[in-house]
Amino acid sequence: MLPYKRAVEIADSLWYRHIDGTVIAVAQDHAGGDVLMVAHMNREAVIRTLTTGIVHYWSTTRRAIWMKGETSGHYQYLVDFIPDCDRDAVLLKVVQVGAACHLGTRTCFSRRG
Amino acid sequence: MLPYKRAVEIADSLWYRHIDGTVIAVAQDHAGGDVLMVAHMNREAVIRTLTTGIVHYWSTTRRAIWMKGETSGHYQYLVDFIPDCDRDAVLLKVVQVGAACHLGTRTCFSRRG
Repeated sequence: MLPYKRAVEIADSLWYRHIDGTVIAVAQDHAGGDVLMVAHMNREAVIRTLTTGIVHYWSTTRRAIWMKGETSGHYQYLVDFIPDCDRDAVLLKVVQVGAACHLGTRTCFSRRG
Repeated sequence: MLPYKRAVEIADSLWYRHIDGTVIAVAQDHAGGDVLMVAHMNREAVIRTLTTGIVHYWSTTRRAIWMKGETSGHYQYLVDFIPDCDRDAVLLKVVQVGAACHLGTRTCFSRRG
């Protein structure tokens, strides 16, 4: 968890060029390395994620900030936050509680969609 | 490598809701599990990737199909292609030749951007 000022510095260093002014976020299981899901983060979601240590996204369907697990209990605890070379995507290394996917599977990439 | 007809079936099953009519593509090293890069694929890039076994993307800056490695020699050979639960993103498991990143690092997520 970072102080607010540092979180803002990092948030302001990103390039929000995707849907609704977002970066693409890829969540990867910290231990096993499985890619769990792909979602979007706006500036506020980045700040909340970095200051709380719990991953927040921007829901492009609900057009709202969304704390992953807020209804399911399937939180993602942030272990590492790594922007890519052009800063329009971030890799989130996380500890995933339960299932990352709303279908109940561990990852969203499980050939059941 | 898939027959053209099967590649088209898979390509037509995806939801191209991102920039320029694309899906988000996450390339992951097949062996080590490192997330190498995030890019976009339109329908044609998906078909070329599945039929040739060499990963093609849609360049949102050049607005053109782009065979990864066509200038650098740093090709990505496709090992697996897994759509996510809502079919607007795909996970590409690849064998990466050389560096995935144009900065010369193995991955685009290496804190040098």
